Amino acid sequence: MELSNIYKSIQQDLVKVKTELTSISNIDFQWLSEQLNYMVGEGGKGIRPALTLLAGKFYNYNLKYLLPMAAAVELMHTSTLVHDDAIDKSAVRRGRPTMNNLWGEDAAILLGDYLFAKAGVFASDTQNPRAIKLFSQTIMTISSGELSQYLGSFKLVQTREHYIQRIAQKTASLFALATESGAILSEAPEESIEILREYGYNLGIAFQIVDDILDFIGTEEILGKPTGSDLAQGTLTLPSMLVLEYYPDDNPVKKLFENGDKKNIAQAIELVCNSSTIIEECYKVASDYCTKACKSLNQLPDNTAARQALTELADYAMKRKA
Amino acid sequence: MELSNIYKSIQQDLVKVKTELTSISNIDFQWLSEQLNYMVGEGGKGIRPALTLLAGKFYNYNLKYLLPMAAAVELMHTSTLVHDDAIDKSAVRRGRPTMNNLWGEDAAILLGDYLFAKAGVFASDTQNPRAIKLFSQTIMTISSGELSQYLGSFKLVQTREHYIQRIAQKTASLFALATESGAILSEAPEESIEILREYGYNLGIAFQIVDDILDFIGTEEILGKPTGSDLAQGTLTLPSMLVLEYYPDDNPVKKLFENGDKKNIAQAIELVCNSSTIIEECYKVASDYCTKACKSLNQLPDNTAARQALTELADYAMKRKA
Repeated sequence: MELSNIYKSIQQDLVKVKTELTSISNIDFQWLSEQLNYMVGEGGKGIRPALTLLAGKFYNYNLKYLLPMAAAVELMHTSTLVHDDAIDKSAVRRGRPTMNNLWGEDAAILLGDYLFAKAGVFASDTQNPRAIKLFSQTIMTISSGELSQYLGSFKLVQTREHYIQRIAQKTASLFALATESGAILSEAPEESIEILREYGYNLGIAFQIVDDILDFIGTEEILGKPTGSDLAQGTLTLPSMLVLEYYPDDNPVKKLFENGDKKNIAQAIELVCNSSTIIEECYKVASDYCTKACKSLNQLPDNTAARQALTELADYAMKRKA
Repeated sequence: MELSNIYKSIQQDLVKVKTELTSISNIDFQWLSEQLNYMVGEGGKGIRPALTLLAGKFYNYNLKYLLPMAAAVELMHTSTLVHDDAIDKSAVRRGRPTMNNLWGEDAAILLGDYLFAKAGVFASDTQNPRAIKLFSQTIMTISSGELSQYLGSFKLVQTREHYIQRIAQKTASLFALATESGAILSEAPEESIEILREYGYNLGIAFQIVDDILDFIGTEEILGKPTGSDLAQGTLTLPSMLVLEYYPDDNPVKKLFENGDKKNIAQAIELVCNSSTIIEECYKVASDYCTKACKSLNQLPDNTAARQALTELADYAMKRKA
């Protein structure tokens, strides 16, 4: 199913989010204005702002507060990408040169800081101290997860629990913020806030696992960035952990982490692509999180369109190619 | 006058701010906990949190809100230093190795992000949407000022207005946040908020000009970092602008920006140190901002201790050696 179909019930409001986001380039500092335009111009899939809007649909759907929060979560996502790309020295993202590629790592740090701050301004426009605090706490969680990934890079001994904890911090926390804040801002009762938070969290885990699979089996053309980038950064993900598990001898991941020889990346990718077991096992783990995500949605009040969209998003998360 | 004397009326509360700040290292992630401890451990002068507390003294002095904001402004300051040092490749700050020196630029980016976020959590603890929004807007202003400095580096043609605008963004905005938020959180009327904001802003400009002077005439031992660092980064400040103005021929700043030869830095420092005219002119500009800072303080309600402390801080800003 196409995202545009899933988004149907919030399509018009997503356009308003986009308008909010592009409005941030209306500043006097011309160079910065151009960079902001570039960074928010080529949008991603808009999943995070969509989650905020959809989570807001079950109670008091008030765009006055939901709109700035949807913009805040998307902009926070963009700012983490800008810093991540700088750290990973990534040259391309969404098929276009990254900020660090165009202007250097130092400028990318400051551009990311600016976006973080602007996201904070959007969050504060909700005028809801709980949602605002959650927003800042989520940036802490993400940075902490990124630090943990950074410190663990090129280390072979990592448990699957550690992997899940890491992606929970760096990805699922933002998905959970998106849905939880939408619930809070629509004045949902605590049980519903919890259901929607859990949905976001589990969907986020599934989403990241699929991302990590696609880094092996996807194509650069569709992904808009090179494959094998996790291994190039020395980051173990579920597929590479299974490669280590299934091929204890003469293992390309092991060799890569030991001697840094990049040709091992292509060999690891080939191993994964040729192993239906590894791919299936990874998808199974992701799928279990999707099931967990959706299991309590029927306890939310009737809003067929929103509930259906959330279910379809979980389905999309599994089937997507980029 | 010693800072401890100036701070007398808020000394006990500054200790509480310090306790708040050190408490941020109470987390499970041991490596991060150690870095946080290191970053907030060796405190600076505490001028920014002191400003928030002092600005809060004229109306409803409520520590429940002033304390987290004081912690927020200090932590935001620390996080900007972490990113600045990473960008400038500075090895030493306050006499100790910087984060980028110890752990590399990439880790420093993430550590700075974490501190930004934690500062945002403190700010949100004020539960005051106006103060929280101001907090995020200030990070935008600072990043924008840093970007403007970065883009202008090694460019010889810059006006004095441009310099003042740059330091207003990167330094005065945070001083202004410190005092304005203190005023807002103590429920000061709008005219008093404006007086305290103006005080912070002008003090911040003066403070930065003196910083820029000390980068020429200070000593590494007292400053806790090398002198000449602005020129090494290609940043024109008031003293170097005057060097360009007064010595149009055979000028070391010009040569440095044209050929990058670092020996010109020592020559520029020598020129400034031997020119009482340049030093006096710079101090005169700073002093005018201090006068401007203090000129409306007498319109605030009677709080002799706080008003005296603010006046003495302006005096301290001029006379300090580090």
